[in-house]
Amino acid sequence: MVHGTGRNTGGVTKHRLEAFSDGVFAIAITLLVIELRAPEPEKGTSLAEALWDMWPGYAAYLVSFTIIGVMWLNHHRVFDQVRTVDAPLLVLNLHLLLWAALIPFPTAVMADFLREGDDARTAVAFYSAVILMAAISFSLLYARTTRDRVARLRYSVGVLAYVVALGLSFAAPYVALAFHGAMALYYLFDQATVATERAPER
Amino acid sequence: MVHGTGRNTGGVTKHRLEAFSDGVFAIAITLLVIELRAPEPEKGTSLAEALWDMWPGYAAYLVSFTIIGVMWLNHHRVFDQVRTVDAPLLVLNLHLLLWAALIPFPTAVMADFLREGDDARTAVAFYSAVILMAAISFSLLYARTTRDRVARLRYSVGVLAYVVALGLSFAAPYVALAFHGAMALYYLFDQATVATERAPER
Amino acid sequence: MVHGTGRNTGGVTKHRLEAFSDGVFAIAITLLVIELRAPEPEKGTSLAEALWDMWPGYAAYLVSFTIIGVMWLNHHRVFDQVRTVDAPLLVLNLHLLLWAALIPFPTAVMADFLREGDDARTAVAFYSAVILMAAISFSLLYARTTRDRVARLRYSVGVLAYVVALGLSFAAPYVALAFHGAMALYYLFDQATVATERAPER
Amino acid sequence: MVHGTGRNTGGVTKHRLEAFSDGVFAIAITLLVIELRAPEPEKGTSLAEALWDMWPGYAAYLVSFTIIGVMWLNHHRVFDQVRTVDAPLLVLNLHLLLWAALIPFPTAVMADFLREGDDARTAVAFYSAVILMAAISFSLLYARTTRDRVARLRYSVGVLAYVVALGLSFAAPYVALAFHGAMALYYLFDQATVATERAPER
Repeated sequence: MVHGTGRNTGGVTKHRLEAFSDGVFAIAITLLVIELRAPEPEKGTSLAEALWDMWPGYAAYLVSFTIIGVMWLNHHRVFDQVRTVDAPLLVLNLHLLLWAALIPFPTAVMADFLREGDDARTAVAFYSAVILMAAISFSLLYARTTRDRVARLRYSVGVLAYVVALGLSFAAPYVALAFHGAMALYYLFDQATVATERAPER
Repeated sequence: MVHGTGRNTGGVTKHRLEAFSDGVFAIAITLLVIELRAPEPEKGTSLAEALWDMWPGYAAYLVSFTIIGVMWLNHHRVFDQVRTVDAPLLVLNLHLLLWAALIPFPTAVMADFLREGDDARTAVAFYSAVILMAAISFSLLYARTTRDRVARLRYSVGVLAYVVALGLSFAAPYVALAFHGAMALYYLFDQATVATERAPER
Repeated sequence: MVHGTGRNTGGVTKHRLEAFSDGVFAIAITLLVIELRAPEPEKGTSLAEALWDMWPGYAAYLVSFTIIGVMWLNHHRVFDQVRTVDAPLLVLNLHLLLWAALIPFPTAVMADFLREGDDARTAVAFYSAVILMAAISFSLLYARTTRDRVARLRYSVGVLAYVVALGLSFAAPYVALAFHGAMALYYLFDQATVATERAPER
Repeated sequence: MVHGTGRNTGGVTKHRLEAFSDGVFAIAITLLVIELRAPEPEKGTSLAEALWDMWPGYAAYLVSFTIIGVMWLNHHRVFDQVRTVDAPLLVLNLHLLLWAALIPFPTAVMADFLREGDDARTAVAFYSAVILMAAISFSLLYARTTRDRVARLRYSVGVLAYVVALGLSFAAPYVALAFHGAMALYYLFDQATVATERAPER
């Protein structure tokens, strides 16, 4: 059906772009679990203790899962306003996916080093930097697709919040991680509301 | 096509939500195999013995594969009753996917520790706890999408069964794993029947 | 769109079933590469030699990639004859996916042990057994969906060929692997031809 | 819906072929991140240094991500000209996916050996060889689907460029990697432009 009719006014390209992007988000969000490996407790340590000791991994999984979930929701929202797909949009979308697909890596780094003193600062800062780049790539995509100044402004504020998170990482890595979690939850409820406010009219 | 027409009454959002969820289920179910690693038998042990010794891994693969398969069927059923996607539904669905995508991790833990005495209890209990959380997240989704009291009651009974499985894990881990397998098979045939009873009318 | 209209005569369930199955095939075929790990050559061994020594891994990748590709083609063909999805079909399809998704595991075992004497026989036999189970699960699916006796007979012959491959594994593992490759290629061209013979009439 | 209507003139097979191929591209591009493992710095080395030392991994991720992204765009373009799917097309498409899905492996090899003297030449040459095979498999697919001589000529020039990259790998591995990056960027902007030039008329 999708390809069966002779004339699809702008639909197919956008459909494949969305399906490809959805695929990358779905894979990236599911690959997060690979970074959680079955522990190999040392002699004298029980499995229960070893599983307990992995809590930074769970926290990292939870925050990254929420962040990628919000990115997927957000992507939906951005492309809702797109009528025709042009070359800059294709490139900006691939740029966004580059950072989204990278997230499992800093997540694993953060899980491994969250309790390692100075290295914890590095790990959370590295994580924050990748999330910041993802936020910037979203802003670039959004700047291309909307002329709504208020919306653009909101995105810029979001980017600023991630700059703050990056700064916090050096001072207080745990607080920075909690800040990421809080922002992800805020955006989750915010985006979910916005995404469905439009539902009745469709 | 999907996005080409101007007016899609509530369909597109639901379509992307289902496609994204299907993607996560398909990836999680296929990632289970990653936890089965080629064995590295010690000197004097044949590959045949080493492959045989991995049976907890096969049992865990089988049970988790069936459970995720049932979740996929179940998800289909729940969304069959959904007309419009609202914010709580989006959040509850993401909450469900969070637990579904996590399943390969406790599966690997159970495969590694099923023959390890006290740690076996911990491993199966950990597995049961994650499956219980997945069942609860399904109940929350279901409570949101149906007003059918009988159906809600059935789901609550299902959650109770997983509480029993969690309790069993501490007493008799092997029995608890068998119980998980039996429940998954029961739900598989039950869901498969329900899912297709409606087929003629569609 | 897909779910937006009130009446979809039997289409939706089949569509989601195919999309989910396609997802599992696509993920399983792509996960094969994970079993190819960057080598860690010992002192005095060049990377070129180490990469050359991995040839069983390349052979295993090639054969398994072709087999899963043929399974995907074959799945398309089987479901082409399906009008309504019923409970046994759902269960038989999940049973097929269980074996298809497992293939990366025996592929890795075969790659690791193909040059290990007696263990090579075990490794190729293990591989052949999993492929045989996949062929049987396909036959069960096919027996359910067609009444065409000639077609059913062809499938049974296919299953017999995999029994031969299993027997060969114990006698001559390299020959058995070559036999798998030859069969996969035969089915690839055969299926590709059958799949597209019907194209004009659709 | 997609399968619900009785007559889809050549559309369904093509749709499933594209969806399956998109799935493989999306998974391969997202699996690249798995090769980036959290570092295990030696005593006296900070995490910051260890992350910095991984730069060949980042460069490899960036180049391979762009190459697979371009392949996805390119695939879209090739299939835009396809009306009916025939057996050779199915086989040639699977042949292309075989090389595309393999890319994460040479990417990991290159990341691990880029600073290892002679082995760096081997690693980049191995990478270049796989990319060359992917380019050749694309040319074969293209030769099958178009009669446009100019377009065919352009593809052949592309293949030649990858032969040059392969030669460069032995002489100057870093330059060869930079050359791959430059070509991927060139094709990205080129393909993105071509892909959307046709958008208005659709």
